[in-house]
Amino acid sequence: MSHMATTSRQRKRGHDPESVLSIAVGVFNERGYDGTSMEDLARALGVTKSAIYYHVPGKEQLLARALDRALDGLFEVVADPCATTGPAIERLAWVVRQSVRILIDRLPYVTLLLRVRGNSPTEQQALDRRREFDRFIAHLVKEAAADGEIRPDLDPALVTRLLFGTVNSITEWYQPARGSADDLADALLKMTFDGLRV
Amino acid sequence: MSHMATTSRQRKRGHDPESVLSIAVGVFNERGYDGTSMEDLARALGVTKSAIYYHVPGKEQLLARALDRALDGLFEVVADPCATTGPAIERLAWVVRQSVRILIDRLPYVTLLLRVRGNSPTEQQALDRRREFDRFIAHLVKEAAADGEIRPDLDPALVTRLLFGTVNSITEWYQPARGSADDLADALLKMTFDGLRV
Repeated sequence: MSHMATTSRQRKRGHDPESVLSIAVGVFNERGYDGTSMEDLARALGVTKSAIYYHVPGKEQLLARALDRALDGLFEVVADPCATTGPAIERLAWVVRQSVRILIDRLPYVTLLLRVRGNSPTEQQALDRRREFDRFIAHLVKEAAADGEIRPDLDPALVTRLLFGTVNSITEWYQPARGSADDLADALLKMTFDGLRV
Repeated sequence: MSHMATTSRQRKRGHDPESVLSIAVGVFNERGYDGTSMEDLARALGVTKSAIYYHVPGKEQLLARALDRALDGLFEVVADPCATTGPAIERLAWVVRQSVRILIDRLPYVTLLLRVRGNSPTEQQALDRRREFDRFIAHLVKEAAADGEIRPDLDPALVTRLLFGTVNSITEWYQPARGSADDLADALLKMTFDGLRV
């Protein structure tokens, strides 16, 4: 079978860049990025090892694209006018709600992002962007505290870590049957903004 | 060098069962349990591959011991009279506080526990014990809601997941310089029980 014939068959089987990325992220999350070989990816795609290089130059490029998928979503949230205008406490609640939505809409991508430890320039860059996002949140928390809307006795950086710790922990157990992103965000905001205690 | 001489030297270098376990857990957390070989463990302990079998029959036995270290801590918490007598809301707050303490005191063991996915009978057993712990918490939440002390509009199982999602997320960023277990538990309880909003 010629190379052209193979790739044409792959296209028919749906191996556009989007499905390659989606399948690769599934394999990364299952085996760990470091534990995944190009052979593993080829096997998951149902193509030969040489054909995989037609779809993608390498593992690291797929990782970069996958992490951007998660990070771009979060940065769209903080760039939205709802995140930049109005009372800080409302902006914070909106950003938390939208982050839950991104996490659920892009679950495998966010799951992968949360496992990144900085083992390569690609991972380092993703960590830098995560920290930038965290700084945006910490700043919002600080503003809300300065407005007198958030309890002033908690360190904004700590509130950010605890609040997004709660958001991110959803990746550990989320299943569509357990409710919509909006229901989940409602419950999360009730607990963290208004408290469980009556 | 004879086998006896080697093991005697290892003992002098401090390879009692406790330090073997502690070093092994460090390697499991760094490389992943599945990605860790007996050779990796021998290297980390600074012993030959044959000498490692003097210290431990195999990887899975170390995993079982490590997971028990985390789970036994959590089960001591829920067996304490403070967790079983008194108003449910106070018991819940106490269990959350003590769980933060266990998480920080036994950080590498809890970190390992949270990564377990059930890939072996040992992992399956650990997951079963985690679920038993979760059921205890969900029951406490339910009782506190029945007492009218916790908002009744949230599903107890969801509250349990969100609350312990917040607790468990501490493993992602905790450093001793960031405060004591008690300070951290204070902040976490303020956010989740009383809410961030003033």
